[in-house]
Amino acid sequence: MTSSQDQKKAGAGPFVLSIDAMGGDRGPATIVAGIADSAAKNPDIRFILHGPAEELEKLVAKRKGLADVCEIRDASGVVSMDDKPSQVMRNGKNTSMWSALDSVRNNEATVAVSCGNTGALMALSMIRLRKLKGVNRPAIAILWPSRNPQGFNVMLDVGADIRADAHDLLQYALMGSSYARNGLALRMPRVGLLNVGTEEHKGRSELKEAHELISQAASEGAGFEFVGFVEGGDIPGRKADVIVTDGFTGNVALKTGEGTASLIGDLLKEAFAYSFLSRLASLLALTSLRRLKKRIDPRRVNGGVFLGLNGTVVKSHGSADATGVSAAVKLAFKLAQIGFTDKLAARVASTATLDHDGGAFEAKDGTTK
Amino acid sequence: MTSSQDQKKAGAGPFVLSIDAMGGDRGPATIVAGIADSAAKNPDIRFILHGPAEELEKLVAKRKGLADVCEIRDASGVVSMDDKPSQVMRNGKNTSMWSALDSVRNNEATVAVSCGNTGALMALSMIRLRKLKGVNRPAIAILWPSRNPQGFNVMLDVGADIRADAHDLLQYALMGSSYARNGLALRMPRVGLLNVGTEEHKGRSELKEAHELISQAASEGAGFEFVGFVEGGDIPGRKADVIVTDGFTGNVALKTGEGTASLIGDLLKEAFAYSFLSRLASLLALTSLRRLKKRIDPRRVNGGVFLGLNGTVVKSHGSADATGVSAAVKLAFKLAQIGFTDKLAARVASTATLDHDGGAFEAKDGTTK
Repeated sequence: MTSSQDQKKAGAGPFVLSIDAMGGDRGPATIVAGIADSAAKNPDIRFILHGPAEELEKLVAKRKGLADVCEIRDASGVVSMDDKPSQVMRNGKNTSMWSALDSVRNNEATVAVSCGNTGALMALSMIRLRKLKGVNRPAIAILWPSRNPQGFNVMLDVGADIRADAHDLLQYALMGSSYARNGLALRMPRVGLLNVGTEEHKGRSELKEAHELISQAASEGAGFEFVGFVEGGDIPGRKADVIVTDGFTGNVALKTGEGTASLIGDLLKEAFAYSFLSRLASLLALTSLRRLKKRIDPRRVNGGVFLGLNGTVVKSHGSADATGVSAAVKLAFKLAQIGFTDKLAARVASTATLDHDGGAFEAKDGTTK
Repeated sequence: MTSSQDQKKAGAGPFVLSIDAMGGDRGPATIVAGIADSAAKNPDIRFILHGPAEELEKLVAKRKGLADVCEIRDASGVVSMDDKPSQVMRNGKNTSMWSALDSVRNNEATVAVSCGNTGALMALSMIRLRKLKGVNRPAIAILWPSRNPQGFNVMLDVGADIRADAHDLLQYALMGSSYARNGLALRMPRVGLLNVGTEEHKGRSELKEAHELISQAASEGAGFEFVGFVEGGDIPGRKADVIVTDGFTGNVALKTGEGTASLIGDLLKEAFAYSFLSRLASLLALTSLRRLKKRIDPRRVNGGVFLGLNGTVVKSHGSADATGVSAAVKLAFKLAQIGFTDKLAARVASTATLDHDGGAFEAKDGTTK
């Protein structure tokens, strides 16, 4: 494969992605099928694939041309969905997940992709990649289908940490808007802070404090517009491009949205199966329904992004099929291509001085207060 | 109209409902249209209608037979959507909302219905009806379309209070299961506690404590089964019948679910409008789509119920049309008919001794510890 010098620079390809082949519900064959799809579509992608070498070599050999753009790194251990993060941090050195993160740590790749255990992946990412200077709690950001022209809103944190204080929420606003600017090509993303009402006096005290901090950062040129408090209905709405919340609320909202969409899909199927006429209608409607499904298919927007680390990690759904893996790889490639890791780091560093409150933020002289 | 002696007893009708005619987005004509629909369908409903007498008399006179089952109580003041709860508590004595609650307070009706400002309605309900002995924070419960055979799950709190400690969450489990038992005819409702994972070690400390308290209450015969932690995806799922959470998380989840459903509905319309063939298909599919819409139409499950007060209050959507108002009235009637207020009070009192921790709960001797 092409060797990669200083993958941290943005610019022309090829770009190397580090792929954890293990830990997905469907096994490594699905991961290899997904990266093969991506490789076929995009000649500028290179892979470092982590897992049991013998098994992976066989799987890669079956896919025409894949061996030319894919280097295999042997790692015999696998992080399972049941493993606790603390166990993996202590005993996970031989796992494919650890190995995949270390390729980013060693600057062989800028972005890692894994379908594995989210908690373990975040815990390992924190110790192997370390938090960005100025970031207290990294966050997981996702793209949520929305009414906005770009088709998606960014929402974070959806579950990296169940807590977030006002300063963390300010960091999420900075990181989320950087993701929206680079990932969704929005020059000046609109940030909303999730609450139970839009009036300024509403909600928990940390939200009122965060409202002030984010408002101040926006007015001092942090590169986003602050639209104030938004409600759950605005997550798929057009009022904001970036929805900021703590990881507990964000995780519940994400799963509620997914569950609601899935229920409606099943009820739609039931409704169409009801009578002969409705079955006939559903045949005719198939194209329309497929179009809709494509628009909101979770497989096509597969990939939570870990923000706030020295390196970018894309977390694919554990149950992702080849299409889902390929979507996560596409997102990872896009982020590698635009040099997202560096851009995010620069944004966080440049706005660290906006936080007049001190906290765990980086001061102008580069030291941490 | 029929006079009502001791409406607090369950049994045969007629049953008197106290209706706030004002404060809805569409004005009193819509409320009157809604109660007229209900009256036409059910000969056992009687109304006390609160608002400006002159205006209401004209509206009621237009509906055949309505005047015979509807008494009007003059109240000139209106609580608007912008009024702060504290203002209404101080200066709201002349409002239709205050008057509607006082009919329940005075035992003329057991259930009140209002389309008005939720915050003000809850605040007024607390001072006019008072909290049930043994309840620290009343909650708002709603019915959420679900995969369960009964078609709906109960979820609470969806926004009465942004906080809830472990003891409040236990109370919600008791009140929510009482609502499910009486409102959904489930002998032994299954209660789930909302969290970001189902493992017992996960989540905030108050959730772990609540897990213990609820688990203990269930094992000591509180009349429900406890299925432990559930996730956002389980709110419309079949794992539990009652979902317990704090009012902040519940409110965000509710609005996220509504927003997601509404987005999918609009995208479905767009998908069908795409081409001639898809428009033709949509014509044929109309019946199926209407069947689905009816199943998840928020107007047909209109009505959050305030639990934990001396009296039951049904909060209808502010934007409810006549169908929505009629659905809220139907729910209120059902609750009046089964004597829900008394049943809930008895359940809370009988299980107060289950709380070995003390707190604000009622002791066996009837005093509040």
